[in-house]
Amino acid sequence: MQRRAFLASSAALGASLLAGCKREEKSTLHISRGRKIHIKLATSWPANFPIMGEGVEEFAKRVAEATNNEVQIKVFAKNLLVPALGVFDACSAGQIDAFHSGPYYWKGKNAAFSLFGGFPFGFTSTEMNAWMMYGGGLDIWRKLYAKYNLYPLLGGNTGVQMGGWFRKEIKSFSDLKGLKMRIPGLGGEVMAKLGINPVLLPAGEIYTALDRGTIDATEWVGPALDIKMGFYKVAKYYYSGFHEPGSVLELTFNKKFWDFLPQDIQTIIISLANEMNAKMIYNFQDKNAKALQQLKKFGVELKEWPQEIVEAAKKALMTVIQEQSNKSQDFKEVWQQIEPYWMQNRAWTSLGTKNYLEMRDG
Amino acid sequence: MQRRAFLASSAALGASLLAGCKREEKSTLHISRGRKIHIKLATSWPANFPIMGEGVEEFAKRVAEATNNEVQIKVFAKNLLVPALGVFDACSAGQIDAFHSGPYYWKGKNAAFSLFGGFPFGFTSTEMNAWMMYGGGLDIWRKLYAKYNLYPLLGGNTGVQMGGWFRKEIKSFSDLKGLKMRIPGLGGEVMAKLGINPVLLPAGEIYTALDRGTIDATEWVGPALDIKMGFYKVAKYYYSGFHEPGSVLELTFNKKFWDFLPQDIQTIIISLANEMNAKMIYNFQDKNAKALQQLKKFGVELKEWPQEIVEAAKKALMTVIQEQSNKSQDFKEVWQQIEPYWMQNRAWTSLGTKNYLEMRDG
Repeated sequence: MQRRAFLASSAALGASLLAGCKREEKSTLHISRGRKIHIKLATSWPANFPIMGEGVEEFAKRVAEATNNEVQIKVFAKNLLVPALGVFDACSAGQIDAFHSGPYYWKGKNAAFSLFGGFPFGFTSTEMNAWMMYGGGLDIWRKLYAKYNLYPLLGGNTGVQMGGWFRKEIKSFSDLKGLKMRIPGLGGEVMAKLGINPVLLPAGEIYTALDRGTIDATEWVGPALDIKMGFYKVAKYYYSGFHEPGSVLELTFNKKFWDFLPQDIQTIIISLANEMNAKMIYNFQDKNAKALQQLKKFGVELKEWPQEIVEAAKKALMTVIQEQSNKSQDFKEVWQQIEPYWMQNRAWTSLGTKNYLEMRDG
Repeated sequence: MQRRAFLASSAALGASLLAGCKREEKSTLHISRGRKIHIKLATSWPANFPIMGEGVEEFAKRVAEATNNEVQIKVFAKNLLVPALGVFDACSAGQIDAFHSGPYYWKGKNAAFSLFGGFPFGFTSTEMNAWMMYGGGLDIWRKLYAKYNLYPLLGGNTGVQMGGWFRKEIKSFSDLKGLKMRIPGLGGEVMAKLGINPVLLPAGEIYTALDRGTIDATEWVGPALDIKMGFYKVAKYYYSGFHEPGSVLELTFNKKFWDFLPQDIQTIIISLANEMNAKMIYNFQDKNAKALQQLKKFGVELKEWPQEIVEAAKKALMTVIQEQSNKSQDFKEVWQQIEPYWMQNRAWTSLGTKNYLEMRDG
């Protein structure tokens, strides 16, 4: 491939620079200058997608700044190079060098991948990042992705997502029966056990389906992105969420390409991805808070789930986890690593953050 | 100063490299090679201080990796170059290039600085970072620090701190009267209005004072750091906190030194500081969760504040804010910028995170 040929020749150029310019560093390839590294990065998001898409664009710009343009990341919105959900396979095969997406999209490849994206009643964004960086999460994720010639970095987190938009108020467990709701992933599987009929729909078709009553409800992300979808115009009840409490976005590289990158560039990319990972959370916080004010002006009714539904959903989660563990050894192993960490971190978050928020805003 | 002379000469060297090596980039100073930039960074922490001190050491190591050792940050623990709380003045005067500390320490310089560190019932770490990065916080902080020839970056956050260790249980408002408690900052001023007698003590003297009953209570940080202080051995009641919900740590540079740094190095330092800023939160989460399990084994009693105390503290906060605003125009201006953002973000955090945590762990 042309890119690799270029890298090889720029390494040679680096060696000649070294000879001619009396550099004081010892190493060879990774300090060579005149390097030009081009990275083709495809996303699962449309062009100019707020927060997530903007975050990747900013990341690419900062990598160029940090390397004096030695590293040029070209970001392709969905369908420009590959379809939105084709990025995993395309990157695995080396057709693109990297992608920005979410690990829950790949549960068809390996059921365990959904757990790296988050799970109902699961980690908050802070807990998820703690597990990834200090609890062994990244290690086991990288081990499993390596089988697909992929190397994942953390690339963002939505924070707590809202439970979704409903055309009718949900007052009791029986109101869920037979309801058609657009909700993917483990959340969809949990809701199915409560009698909901989960539906998958392309993003562009959800609004019309909700407007016409083809579906009764939909979840999306949170105030900032939901308001742009216009759901508030056709469904009045907006529920707090338990199904995606801190969904992970990934910046994943083709592993052979990654391994070939000089160490300084790897450090820069990891650090700037960690920066993007955190800033996306803060940007969601900022934009969600602003959009919520707007939604209130539009007369949206903010609702909490009846307690019986919350309790039923918790039980349903444990059934779903058991079913998935029976079907997939990888899922079972990842869950066994997650569960004690989850219990331990819930205890601290509850004592610290939950008690605090109840004092402040209760 | 020698460092600056070196930078200048390495810029000249860079120009000759450019001429001799046919570099394709256009710019001059900031792409020169053979640069060596040495940064003297002093902290307010003792050597090998967990999480905060370790975080700065890791940051320095990663900056060296990202720059192929062009940038060498030497980290000095407290008292090695300057006293723990002398770093602000030393950096302002150019005796050191940078420091890692907390902005609430400098409220004697300018009352407004305490607000950049956080305030009782204030921003969580996520809200604080959102305000800093997307709500104008960093801009106003930098404007005020510029008067001292300083340029602050975000350098970490403790997350929600615990309310502190008490030798006796606090059952009602009257139990606070005359209690001697080690508690600094705005939290101390709020508690003073509730009848507590706030005491300042050096870290090394707190344990003995608490053991002997010279003080009745102390706050520190959270489980991970508190357990190392041994407070659980001499005070059994451990209260959830509202006084420091997300205290900011700063990585602050001498502004003249900062402005002199090449742009690529500035980008690397900012991004790696943002990485440190976030990782410290996740590291606190991880270590606090683990330490809490230990504390439970030691028989510590976890307590929540009586509602009447929480309500009185909220009223006291507004009085303190008013008093400070009357005394300091800067405080008043920063608070006027904070207040609407605080209200807006509380609404979203309450709807999203609080409701979620109550469903999960309530």
